[in-house]
Amino acid sequence: MNKQALVENIKKKKSFLCVGLDTDIKKIPQYLLKDEDPIFAFNKAIIDATAPYCIAYKPNLAFYDSMGVKGLEAFEHTVAYLRENYPDQFIIADAKRGDIGNTSELYARCFFEHTKVDAVTVAPYMGEDSVKPFLNYKEGWVILLALTSNTGSLDFQMFEDKAGTRLFEKVLDTSKKWATDERMMYVVGATQGKMFRDIRKHVPTHFLLVPGVGAQGGSLAEVVKYGMTDECGLIVNSSRGIIYAANDETFADVAAEKAKLVQAKMAQSLSEKGIID
Amino acid sequence: MNKQALVENIKKKKSFLCVGLDTDIKKIPQYLLKDEDPIFAFNKAIIDATAPYCIAYKPNLAFYDSMGVKGLEAFEHTVAYLRENYPDQFIIADAKRGDIGNTSELYARCFFEHTKVDAVTVAPYMGEDSVKPFLNYKEGWVILLALTSNTGSLDFQMFEDKAGTRLFEKVLDTSKKWATDERMMYVVGATQGKMFRDIRKHVPTHFLLVPGVGAQGGSLAEVVKYGMTDECGLIVNSSRGIIYAANDETFADVAAEKAKLVQAKMAQSLSEKGIID
Repeated sequence: MNKQALVENIKKKKSFLCVGLDTDIKKIPQYLLKDEDPIFAFNKAIIDATAPYCIAYKPNLAFYDSMGVKGLEAFEHTVAYLRENYPDQFIIADAKRGDIGNTSELYARCFFEHTKVDAVTVAPYMGEDSVKPFLNYKEGWVILLALTSNTGSLDFQMFEDKAGTRLFEKVLDTSKKWATDERMMYVVGATQGKMFRDIRKHVPTHFLLVPGVGAQGGSLAEVVKYGMTDECGLIVNSSRGIIYAANDETFADVAAEKAKLVQAKMAQSLSEKGIID
Repeated sequence: MNKQALVENIKKKKSFLCVGLDTDIKKIPQYLLKDEDPIFAFNKAIIDATAPYCIAYKPNLAFYDSMGVKGLEAFEHTVAYLRENYPDQFIIADAKRGDIGNTSELYARCFFEHTKVDAVTVAPYMGEDSVKPFLNYKEGWVILLALTSNTGSLDFQMFEDKAGTRLFEKVLDTSKKWATDERMMYVVGATQGKMFRDIRKHVPTHFLLVPGVGAQGGSLAEVVKYGMTDECGLIVNSSRGIIYAANDETFADVAAEKAKLVQAKMAQSLSEKGIID
Protein backbone atom coordinates (compact mmCIF):
# COMPACT_ATOMS: atom_id res chain seq x y z
CA MET A 1 0.00 0.00 0.00
CA ASN A 2 1.42 3.40 -0.90
CA LYS A 3 1.38 6.53 1.23
CA GLN A 4 -1.49 8.15 -0.65
CA ALA A 5 -3.73 5.12 -0.17
CA LEU A 6 -2.82 5.02 3.51
CA VAL A 7 -3.69 8.69 4.00
CA GLU A 8 -6.96 8.30 2.10
CA ASN A 9 -7.85 5.33 4.23
CA ILE A 10 -7.16 7.28 7.41
CA LYS A 11 -9.49 10.02 6.20
CA LYS A 12 -12.19 7.59 5.11
CA LYS A 13 -12.19 5.63 8.33
CA LYS A 14 -11.47 8.65 10.53
CA SER A 15 -8.93 6.56 12.35
CA PHE A 16 -5.19 6.05 12.57
CA LEU A 17 -5.47 3.08 14.87
CA CYS A 18 -3.37 -0.04 14.45
CA VAL A 19 -4.46 -3.10 16.37
CA GLY A 20 -1.50 -5.07 17.65
CA LEU A 21 -2.03 -8.80 17.27
CA ASP A 22 0.23 -9.81 20.17
CA THR A 23 -1.61 -13.06 20.49
CA ASP A 24 -0.48 -15.19 23.42
CA ILE A 25 -1.96 -18.66 23.80
CA LYS A 26 -1.85 -18.18 27.57
CA LYS A 27 -4.03 -15.08 27.44
CA ILE A 28 -6.77 -15.89 24.95
CA PRO A 29 -10.19 -17.15 26.14
CA GLN A 30 -9.81 -20.78 27.14
CA TYR A 31 -12.73 -22.08 25.07
CA LEU A 32 -10.78 -21.20 21.92
CA LEU A 33 -8.22 -23.86 22.75
CA LYS A 34 -10.64 -26.45 21.37
CA ASP A 35 -10.16 -24.89 17.94
CA GLU A 36 -7.71 -26.50 15.54
CA ASP A 37 -5.77 -23.22 15.30
CA PRO A 38 -6.70 -21.20 18.42
CA ILE A 39 -4.36 -18.32 17.62
CA PHE A 40 -5.82 -17.79 14.17
CA ALA A 41 -9.37 -18.24 15.53
CA PHE A 42 -8.66 -15.48 18.06
CA ASN A 43 -7.07 -13.18 15.46
CA LYS A 44 -9.91 -13.71 12.98
CA ALA A 45 -12.52 -12.80 15.59
CA ILE A 46 -10.53 -9.72 16.67
CA ILE A 47 -10.05 -8.62 13.07
CA ASP A 48 -13.69 -9.07 12.09
CA ALA A 49 -14.77 -7.10 15.16
CA THR A 50 -12.24 -4.24 15.01
CA ALA A 51 -11.69 -3.72 11.26
CA PRO A 52 -14.25 -0.89 10.98
CA TYR A 53 -12.28 1.13 13.53
CA CYS A 54 -8.67 0.68 12.48
CA ILE A 55 -6.48 1.09 9.42
CA ALA A 56 -3.69 -1.34 10.26
CA TYR A 57 -2.85 -4.59 12.02
CA LYS A 58 0.48 -5.39 13.56
CA PRO A 59 1.27 -8.98 14.50
CA ASN A 60 4.43 -9.06 16.62
CA LEU A 61 6.48 -12.00 15.42
CA ALA A 62 7.74 -12.92 18.90
CA PHE A 63 4.29 -14.19 19.80
CA TYR A 64 4.18 -16.44 16.74
CA ASP A 65 7.83 -17.51 16.75
CA SER A 66 7.52 -18.62 20.37
CA MET A 67 4.96 -21.24 19.35
CA GLY A 68 7.15 -22.86 16.73
CA VAL A 69 5.60 -24.27 13.57
CA LYS A 70 2.02 -23.77 14.78
CA GLY A 71 2.70 -20.14 15.56
CA LEU A 72 4.21 -19.54 12.17
CA GLU A 73 1.20 -21.11 10.49
CA ALA A 74 -1.13 -18.92 12.55
CA PHE A 75 0.87 -15.84 11.47
CA GLU A 76 0.67 -16.80 7.81
CA HIS A 77 -3.06 -17.57 8.01
CA THR A 78 -3.67 -14.25 9.71
CA VAL A 79 -1.87 -12.25 7.02
CA ALA A 80 -3.60 -14.23 4.25
CA TYR A 81 -6.99 -13.66 5.90
CA LEU A 82 -6.37 -9.91 6.08
CA ARG A 83 -5.15 -9.75 2.49
CA GLU A 84 -8.23 -11.57 1.22
CA ASN A 85 -10.94 -9.98 3.33
CA TYR A 86 -9.60 -6.57 4.30
CA PRO A 87 -7.39 -5.36 1.45
CA ASP A 88 -7.60 -1.80 2.79
CA GLN A 89 -5.74 -2.72 5.99
CA PHE A 90 -2.02 -1.93 6.24
CA ILE A 91 -0.21 -5.01 7.56
CA ILE A 92 2.90 -4.56 9.67
CA ALA A 93 5.16 -7.47 10.61
CA ASP A 94 6.64 -6.27 13.88
CA ALA A 95 9.83 -8.28 13.65
CA LYS A 96 12.59 -5.81 14.55
CA ARG A 97 14.96 -7.70 12.27
CA GLY A 98 18.30 -6.55 10.88
CA ASP A 99 21.43 -8.44 9.83
CA ILE A 100 24.30 -8.12 7.36
CA GLY A 101 23.16 -7.43 3.81
CA ASN A 102 22.91 -10.91 2.33
CA THR A 103 21.06 -12.08 5.44
CA SER A 104 18.65 -9.14 5.74
CA GLU A 105 17.80 -9.94 2.13
CA LEU A 106 16.40 -13.26 3.30
CA TYR A 107 14.28 -11.64 5.99
CA ALA A 108 12.99 -9.22 3.39
CA ARG A 109 12.17 -12.09 1.04
CA CYS A 110 10.39 -13.83 3.90
CA PHE A 111 8.10 -10.93 4.75
CA PHE A 112 7.56 -9.32 1.37
CA GLU A 113 7.55 -12.30 -1.00
CA HIS A 114 6.47 -15.20 1.14
CA THR A 115 4.01 -13.70 3.64
CA LYS A 116 3.29 -10.46 1.75
CA VAL A 117 2.97 -7.84 4.45
CA ASP A 118 3.10 -4.09 3.75
CA ALA A 119 5.80 -3.19 6.24
CA VAL A 120 8.45 -4.68 8.49
CA THR A 121 9.95 -3.11 11.59
CA VAL A 122 13.74 -3.09 11.41
CA ALA A 123 16.44 -2.42 14.02
CA PRO A 124 19.00 0.23 12.97
CA TYR A 125 22.11 -0.84 14.91
CA MET A 126 23.83 -2.55 11.98
CA GLY A 127 23.38 0.39 9.62
CA GLU A 128 22.61 0.94 5.97
CA ASP A 129 23.36 -2.42 4.39
CA SER A 130 21.24 -4.18 7.00
CA VAL A 131 18.23 -2.01 6.11
CA LYS A 132 18.58 -1.56 2.35
CA PRO A 133 17.50 -5.09 1.34
CA PHE A 134 14.06 -4.35 2.81
CA LEU A 135 13.82 -1.35 0.50
CA ASN A 136 14.33 -3.43 -2.63
CA TYR A 137 10.66 -4.32 -2.69
CA LYS A 138 8.69 -1.67 -4.53
CA GLU A 139 5.61 -2.01 -2.38
CA GLY A 140 7.37 -2.70 0.90
CA TRP A 141 7.89 -0.25 3.75
CA VAL A 142 10.65 -0.22 6.34
CA ILE A 143 9.64 0.99 9.79
CA LEU A 144 12.92 1.72 11.52
CA LEU A 145 13.27 1.81 15.31
CA ALA A 146 14.08 5.37 16.37
CA LEU A 147 12.91 6.10 19.91
CA THR A 148 11.17 3.14 21.48
CA SER A 149 8.53 3.04 24.21
CA ASN A 150 10.39 0.99 26.80
CA THR A 151 12.56 2.13 29.71
CA GLY A 152 15.64 0.64 28.03
CA SER A 153 15.27 3.27 25.31
CA LEU A 154 17.25 5.55 27.63
CA ASP A 155 20.29 3.26 27.63
CA PHE A 156 21.57 3.92 24.12
CA GLN A 157 19.03 5.87 22.07
CA MET A 158 19.75 9.04 24.07
CA PHE A 159 23.53 8.67 23.70
CA GLU A 160 24.70 12.12 22.63
CA ASP A 161 27.57 13.39 20.52
CA LYS A 162 29.52 16.59 21.19
CA ALA A 163 27.13 18.64 19.05
CA GLY A 164 24.22 17.48 21.20
CA THR A 165 22.80 15.11 18.60
CA ARG A 166 21.33 12.03 20.22
CA LEU A 167 21.59 8.57 18.71
CA PHE A 168 17.90 8.43 17.75
CA GLU A 169 18.37 11.76 15.92
CA LYS A 170 21.47 10.43 14.19
CA VAL A 171 19.42 7.39 13.14
CA LEU A 172 16.71 9.65 11.71
CA ASP A 173 19.13 11.96 9.89
CA THR A 174 21.22 9.17 8.41
CA SER A 175 18.45 6.79 7.46
CA LYS A 176 16.15 9.32 5.87
CA LYS A 177 18.68 9.52 3.04
CA TRP A 178 18.19 5.83 2.29
CA ALA A 179 14.62 6.22 1.04
CA THR A 180 11.81 8.75 0.83
CA ASP A 181 8.89 9.10 3.22
CA GLU A 182 6.96 6.95 0.76
CA ARG A 183 9.02 3.93 1.78
CA MET A 184 10.17 4.54 5.34
CA MET A 185 8.49 5.18 8.64
CA TYR A 186 9.89 5.31 12.18
CA VAL A 187 8.92 3.72 15.47
CA VAL A 188 8.49 6.36 18.16
CA GLY A 189 6.99 5.27 21.48
CA ALA A 190 3.94 7.12 22.78
CA THR A 191 5.62 7.16 26.18
CA GLN A 192 8.06 9.72 24.79
CA GLY A 193 5.44 12.55 24.84
CA LYS A 194 7.07 15.86 24.05
CA MET A 195 9.97 14.14 22.30
CA PHE A 196 7.71 14.04 19.26
CA ARG A 197 8.54 17.72 18.81
CA ASP A 198 12.22 16.83 18.44
CA ILE A 199 11.40 13.92 16.17
CA ARG A 200 9.40 16.18 13.86
CA LYS A 201 12.38 18.54 13.46
CA HIS A 202 14.21 15.68 11.76
CA VAL A 203 11.38 13.93 9.93
CA PRO A 204 8.58 16.46 9.41
CA THR A 205 6.60 14.41 6.91
CA HIS A 206 7.36 10.74 7.66
CA PHE A 207 4.75 8.48 9.12
CA LEU A 208 5.50 7.35 12.67
CA LEU A 209 4.38 4.05 14.10
CA VAL A 210 3.55 4.75 17.71
CA PRO A 211 3.34 1.91 20.22
CA GLY A 212 2.89 2.46 23.94
CA VAL A 213 -0.60 3.98 24.14
CA GLY A 214 -2.66 1.91 26.60
CA ALA A 215 -0.93 -0.74 28.71
CA GLN A 216 2.42 1.08 28.51
CA GLY A 217 0.88 4.39 29.64
CA GLY A 218 1.51 6.73 26.69
CA SER A 219 -0.85 9.65 26.03
CA LEU A 220 -2.69 9.84 22.73
CA ALA A 221 -3.33 13.56 23.25
CA GLU A 222 0.39 14.34 23.54
CA VAL A 223 1.26 12.20 20.54
CA VAL A 224 -1.31 14.06 18.46
CA LYS A 225 -0.29 17.45 19.78
CA TYR A 226 3.40 17.05 19.02
CA GLY A 227 3.45 14.40 16.32
CA MET A 228 0.56 14.90 13.89
CA THR A 229 1.22 16.25 10.39
CA ASP A 230 -1.10 17.61 7.68
CA GLU A 231 -1.47 14.06 6.41
CA CYS A 232 -1.87 12.68 9.93
CA GLY A 233 1.57 11.07 9.83
CA LEU A 234 0.73 8.77 12.72
CA ILE A 235 -0.21 5.13 13.07
CA VAL A 236 -0.95 4.59 16.74
CA ASN A 237 -0.86 1.03 17.94
CA SER A 238 -2.77 -0.53 20.79
CA SER A 239 -2.43 -4.21 21.58
CA ARG A 240 -3.21 -5.42 25.07
CA GLY A 241 -5.73 -2.64 25.78
CA ILE A 242 -7.91 -3.87 22.93
CA ILE A 243 -7.36 -7.54 22.30
CA TYR A 244 -7.35 -8.63 25.95
CA ALA A 245 -10.04 -6.24 27.20
CA ALA A 246 -12.24 -9.27 27.97
CA ASN A 247 -11.40 -12.91 28.38
CA ASP A 248 -14.69 -14.76 27.78
CA GLU A 249 -17.12 -15.23 24.87
CA THR A 250 -17.56 -11.46 24.66
CA PHE A 251 -13.85 -10.77 23.92
CA ALA A 252 -14.35 -9.73 20.29
CA ASP A 253 -17.31 -7.47 21.06
CA VAL A 254 -15.44 -5.83 23.91
CA ALA A 255 -12.38 -5.40 21.68
CA ALA A 256 -14.62 -3.69 19.12
CA GLU A 257 -15.98 -1.34 21.80
CA LYS A 258 -12.48 -0.45 22.94
CA ALA A 259 -11.32 0.12 19.37
CA LYS A 260 -14.39 2.23 18.67
CA LEU A 261 -13.64 4.43 21.69
CA VAL A 262 -10.09 5.03 20.50
CA GLN A 263 -11.33 5.66 16.95
CA ALA A 264 -13.79 8.27 18.22
CA LYS A 265 -10.96 10.17 19.92
CA MET A 266 -8.87 9.87 16.77
CA ALA A 267 -11.73 11.20 14.61
CA GLN A 268 -11.90 14.22 16.88
CA SER A 269 -8.15 14.83 16.60
CA LEU A 270 -8.26 14.52 12.81
CA SER A 271 -11.15 16.94 12.71
CA GLU A 272 -9.50 19.45 15.03
CA LYS A 273 -6.41 19.40 12.84
CA GLY A 274 -8.58 19.98 9.78
CA ILE A 275 -7.56 16.72 8.15
CA ILE A 276 -11.19 15.60 7.95
CA ASP A 277 -14.36 17.67 8.06
CA MET B 1 27.00 -25.02 28.48
CA ASN B 2 28.97 -22.98 31.00
CA LYS B 3 32.15 -21.01 30.35
CA GLN B 4 34.44 -23.59 31.93
CA ALA B 5 33.06 -26.39 29.74
CA LEU B 6 33.44 -24.19 26.68
CA VAL B 7 37.07 -23.39 27.49
CA GLU B 8 37.87 -27.05 28.19
CA ASN B 9 36.31 -28.02 24.92
CA ILE B 10 38.40 -25.46 23.05
CA LYS B 11 41.54 -26.90 24.63
CA LYS B 12 40.51 -30.49 23.97
CA LYS B 13 39.65 -29.91 20.32
CA LYS B 14 42.38 -27.32 19.77
CA SER B 15 39.85 -25.22 17.97
CA PHE B 16 37.67 -22.16 18.49
CA LEU B 17 35.88 -22.55 15.21
CA CYS B 18 32.14 -22.09 14.87
CA VAL B 19 30.56 -23.35 11.67
CA GLY B 20 27.77 -21.07 10.50
CA LEU B 21 24.80 -23.02 9.20
CA ASP B 22 23.57 -20.32 6.81
CA THR B 23 21.80 -22.92 4.76
CA ASP B 24 20.18 -21.57 1.61
CA ILE B 25 18.07 -23.92 -0.46
CA LYS B 26 19.35 -22.14 -3.57
CA LYS B 27 22.97 -22.91 -2.76
CA ILE B 28 22.99 -26.51 -1.58
CA PRO B 29 23.87 -29.35 -3.98
CA GLN B 30 20.89 -29.96 -6.22
CA TYR B 31 20.70 -33.71 -5.64
CA LEU B 32 19.71 -33.02 -2.01
CA LEU B 33 16.45 -31.49 -3.17
CA LYS B 34 15.10 -35.03 -3.59
CA ASP B 35 15.35 -35.43 0.18
CA GLU B 36 12.20 -34.92 2.26
CA ASP B 37 13.97 -32.18 4.26
CA PRO B 38 16.88 -30.98 2.09
CA ILE B 39 17.99 -28.28 4.54
CA PHE B 40 18.29 -30.71 7.41
CA ALA B 41 19.95 -33.30 5.15
CA PHE B 42 22.55 -30.70 4.19
CA ASN B 43 23.09 -29.58 7.80
CA LYS B 44 23.39 -33.15 9.07
CA ALA B 45 26.06 -33.96 6.49
CA ILE B 46 27.97 -30.75 7.26
CA ILE B 47 27.77 -31.39 11.01
CA ASP B 48 28.91 -35.01 10.78
CA ALA B 49 31.84 -33.96 8.60
CA THR B 50 32.99 -30.86 10.49
CA ALA B 51 32.25 -31.72 14.14
CA PRO B 52 35.79 -32.94 14.88
CA TYR B 53 37.19 -29.53 13.92
CA CYS B 54 34.80 -27.07 15.57
CA ILE B 55 33.34 -26.31 18.99
CA ALA B 56 30.16 -24.50 17.96
CA TYR B 57 27.47 -24.28 15.32
CA LYS B 58 25.56 -21.14 14.47
CA PRO B 59 22.39 -21.41 12.42
CA ASN B 60 21.32 -17.93 11.30
CA LEU B 61 17.56 -17.75 11.69
CA ALA B 62 17.04 -15.63 8.58
CA PHE B 63 17.85 -18.63 6.41
CA TYR B 64 15.26 -20.78 8.17
CA ASP B 65 12.60 -18.08 8.64
CA SER B 66 12.72 -17.29 4.94
CA MET B 67 11.50 -20.79 4.16
CA GLY B 68 8.44 -20.60 6.36
CA VAL B 69 7.21 -23.68 8.20
CA LYS B 70 9.65 -26.02 6.45
CA GLY B 71 12.56 -23.82 7.38
CA LEU B 72 11.52 -23.70 10.99
CA GLU B 73 11.22 -27.47 11.09
CA ALA B 74 14.69 -27.81 9.58
CA PHE B 75 16.06 -25.44 12.24
CA GLU B 76 14.44 -27.44 15.04
CA HIS B 77 15.63 -30.76 13.63
CA THR B 78 19.15 -29.39 13.30
CA VAL B 79 19.32 -28.26 16.92
CA ALA B 80 17.79 -31.52 18.14
CA TYR B 81 20.30 -33.50 16.08
CA LEU B 82 23.20 -31.55 17.56
CA ARG B 83 21.87 -31.92 21.11
CA GLU B 84 21.50 -35.66 20.73
CA ASN B 85 24.65 -36.52 18.83
CA TYR B 86 27.13 -33.76 19.65
CA PRO B 87 26.38 -32.61 23.21
CA ASP B 88 29.82 -30.96 23.40
CA GLN B 89 28.93 -28.46 20.67
CA PHE B 90 27.88 -24.94 21.69
CA ILE B 91 24.74 -24.00 19.75
CA ILE B 92 24.14 -20.37 18.84
CA ALA B 93 20.84 -19.15 17.42
CA ASP B 94 21.94 -16.16 15.36
CA ALA B 95 18.66 -14.29 15.56
CA LYS B 96 19.63 -10.70 16.45
CA ARG B 97 16.34 -10.32 18.31
CA GLY B 98 15.36 -7.64 20.81
CA ASP B 99 12.01 -6.11 21.74
CA ILE B 100 10.27 -4.56 24.76
CA GLY B 101 10.54 -6.69 27.90
CA ASN B 102 7.37 -8.78 27.73
CA THR B 103 8.03 -9.50 24.07
CA SER B 104 11.74 -10.34 24.38
CA GLU B 105 10.59 -12.81 27.04
CA LEU B 106 8.74 -14.71 24.33
CA TYR B 107 11.79 -14.83 22.07
CA ALA B 108 13.81 -16.08 25.04
CA ARG B 109 11.22 -18.77 25.74
CA CYS B 110 11.31 -19.73 22.09
CA PHE B 111 15.06 -20.28 21.93
CA PHE B 112 15.86 -21.50 25.43
CA GLU B 113 12.76 -23.55 26.33
CA HIS B 114 11.38 -24.64 23.01
CA THR B 115 14.43 -25.16 20.79
CA LYS B 116 17.04 -25.34 23.59
CA VAL B 117 20.06 -23.60 22.15
CA ASP B 118 22.99 -22.41 24.29
CA ALA B 119 23.07 -18.81 23.14
CA VAL B 120 21.08 -16.21 21.21
CA THR B 121 22.45 -13.14 19.47
CA VAL B 122 20.60 -10.01 20.59
CA ALA B 123 20.51 -6.45 19.22
CA PRO B 124 21.25 -3.77 21.84
CA TYR B 125 19.34 -0.76 20.47
CA MET B 126 16.34 -1.10 22.80
CA GLY B 127 18.45 -1.36 25.94
CA GLU B 128 18.39 -3.27 29.20
CA ASP B 129 14.80 -4.50 29.45
CA SER B 130 15.00 -5.87 25.90
CA VAL B 131 18.05 -7.97 26.80
CA LYS B 132 17.33 -9.03 30.40
CA PRO B 133 14.63 -11.63 29.61
CA PHE B 134 17.25 -13.65 27.75
CA LEU B 135 19.35 -13.69 30.93
CA ASN B 136 16.58 -15.28 33.00
CA TYR B 137 17.58 -18.72 31.77
CA LYS B 138 20.33 -20.16 33.96
CA GLU B 139 22.04 -22.01 31.15
CA GLY B 140 21.41 -19.46 28.43
CA TRP B 141 23.93 -17.00 27.02
CA VAL B 142 23.27 -13.62 25.43
CA ILE B 143 25.60 -12.64 22.62
CA LEU B 144 25.07 -8.93 22.20
CA LEU B 145 25.91 -7.08 18.99
CA ALA B 146 28.78 -4.69 19.67
CA LEU B 147 30.85 -3.99 16.54
CA THR B 148 29.56 -5.89 13.55
CA SER B 149 31.43 -7.06 10.47
CA ASN B 150 29.43 -5.19 7.80
CA THR B 151 30.08 -1.78 6.24
CA GLY B 152 26.92 -0.42 7.89
CA SER B 153 28.65 -0.86 11.26
CA LEU B 154 30.20 2.57 10.61
CA ASP B 155 26.81 4.29 10.44
CA PHE B 156 25.87 4.20 14.13
CA GLN B 157 28.23 1.95 16.07
CA MET B 158 31.05 4.51 15.76
CA PHE B 159 28.83 7.42 16.87
CA GLU B 160 30.90 9.21 19.49
CA ASP B 161 30.08 11.23 22.59
CA LYS B 162 32.03 14.31 23.74
CA ALA B 163 34.34 12.15 25.88
CA GLY B 164 35.30 10.17 22.80
CA THR B 165 33.34 7.07 23.77
CA ARG B 166 31.87 5.37 20.74
CA LEU B 167 28.44 3.72 20.75
CA PHE B 168 29.87 0.20 20.64
CA GLU B 169 31.98 1.05 23.69
CA LYS B 170 28.97 2.50 25.46
CA VAL B 171 27.12 -0.75 24.67
CA LEU B 172 29.98 -2.79 26.16
CA ASP B 173 30.31 -0.65 29.30
CA THR B 174 26.61 -0.50 30.00
CA SER B 175 25.69 -4.07 29.19
CA LYS B 176 28.55 -5.74 31.04
CA LYS B 177 26.79 -4.67 34.25
CA TRP B 178 23.72 -6.72 33.31
CA ALA B 179 25.46 -10.08 33.68
CA THR B 180 28.90 -11.61 34.16
CA ASP B 181 31.20 -12.97 31.47
CA GLU B 182 29.69 -16.37 32.32
CA ARG B 183 26.42 -15.33 30.71
CA MET B 184 27.26 -12.70 28.12
CA MET B 185 29.42 -12.55 25.03
CA TYR B 186 29.72 -9.92 22.31
CA VAL B 187 29.66 -9.97 18.53
CA VAL B 188 32.76 -8.30 17.09
CA GLY B 189 33.36 -8.63 13.37
CA ALA B 190 36.70 -10.01 12.20
CA THR B 191 36.76 -7.22 9.63
CA GLN B 192 37.41 -4.78 12.51
CA GLY B 193 41.04 -5.95 12.92
CA LYS B 194 42.87 -3.69 15.34
CA MET B 195 39.60 -2.58 16.93
CA PHE B 196 39.86 -5.75 19.00
CA ARG B 197 42.45 -3.89 21.08
CA ASP B 198 39.85 -1.27 21.97
CA ILE B 199 37.23 -3.92 22.60
CA ARG B 200 39.54 -5.71 25.04
CA LYS B 201 39.98 -2.52 27.07
CA HIS B 202 36.28 -2.70 27.89
CA VAL B 203 35.70 -6.44 28.10
CA PRO B 204 39.05 -8.08 28.86
CA THR B 205 37.66 -11.50 29.78
CA HIS B 206 34.41 -11.89 27.83
CA PHE B 207 34.11 -14.32 24.99
CA LEU B 208 33.67 -12.67 21.61
CA LEU B 209 31.77 -14.23 18.74
CA VAL B 210 33.66 -13.24 15.62
CA PRO B 211 31.98 -13.43 12.22
CA GLY B 212 33.58 -12.13 9.07
CA VAL B 213 36.57 -14.43 8.60
CA GLY B 214 36.41 -15.92 5.11
CA ALA B 215 33.87 -14.56 2.63
CA GLN B 216 33.75 -11.17 4.36
CA GLY B 217 37.54 -10.80 4.31
CA GLY B 218 38.50 -10.64 7.99
CA SER B 219 41.94 -11.81 9.13
CA LEU B 220 42.17 -14.62 11.68
CA ALA B 221 45.73 -13.60 12.55
CA GLU B 222 44.67 -10.07 13.51
CA VAL B 223 41.72 -11.32 15.53
CA VAL B 224 44.02 -13.65 17.48
CA LYS B 225 46.71 -11.02 17.91
CA TYR B 226 44.42 -8.37 19.35
CA GLY B 227 41.49 -10.36 20.70
CA MET B 228 42.70 -13.59 22.30
CA THR B 229 42.68 -13.97 26.09
CA ASP B 230 44.25 -16.51 28.44
CA GLU B 231 41.12 -18.63 28.06
CA CYS B 232 41.05 -18.03 24.30
CA GLY B 233 37.97 -15.79 24.61
CA LEU B 234 37.17 -16.16 20.93
CA ILE B 235 34.64 -18.12 18.93
CA VAL B 236 35.43 -17.47 15.29
CA ASN B 237 32.68 -18.19 12.83
CA SER B 238 32.99 -19.22 9.23
CA SER B 239 29.92 -19.96 7.16
CA ARG B 240 30.14 -19.65 3.39
CA GLY B 241 33.86 -20.47 3.26
CA ILE B 242 33.18 -23.90 4.72
CA ILE B 243 29.65 -25.04 3.94
CA TYR B 244 29.64 -23.95 0.30
CA ALA B 245 33.24 -24.86 -0.53
CA ALA B 246 31.94 -27.50 -2.96
CA ASN B 247 28.57 -27.95 -4.57
CA ASP B 248 28.46 -31.62 -5.57
CA GLU B 249 28.52 -35.02 -3.81
CA THR B 250 31.83 -34.10 -2.23
CA PHE B 251 30.46 -31.03 -0.39
CA ALA B 252 30.67 -32.52 3.11
CA ASP B 253 34.19 -33.87 2.59
CA VAL B 254 35.38 -30.56 1.20
CA ALA B 255 33.72 -28.73 4.10
CA ALA B 256 35.61 -31.02 6.49
CA GLU B 257 38.91 -30.24 4.72
CA LYS B 258 38.25 -26.50 4.94
CA ALA B 259 37.29 -26.76 8.62
CA LYS B 260 40.38 -28.85 9.29
CA LEU B 261 42.61 -26.21 7.69
CA VAL B 262 41.12 -23.49 9.88
CA GLN B 263 41.36 -25.72 12.95
CA ALA B 264 45.07 -26.34 12.27
CA LYS B 265 45.72 -22.58 12.23
CA MET B 266 43.72 -22.21 15.42
CA ALA B 267 45.65 -24.99 17.14
CA GLN B 268 48.85 -23.13 16.29
CA SER B 269 47.49 -19.87 17.72
CA LEU B 270 46.36 -21.59 20.91
CA SER B 271 49.76 -23.18 21.25
CA GLU B 272 51.65 -19.94 20.61
CA LYS B 273 49.58 -18.23 23.30
CA GLY B 274 50.36 -21.09 25.70
CA ILE B 275 46.71 -22.08 26.07
CA ILE B 276 47.47 -25.61 24.89
CA ASP B 277 50.76 -27.48 24.84
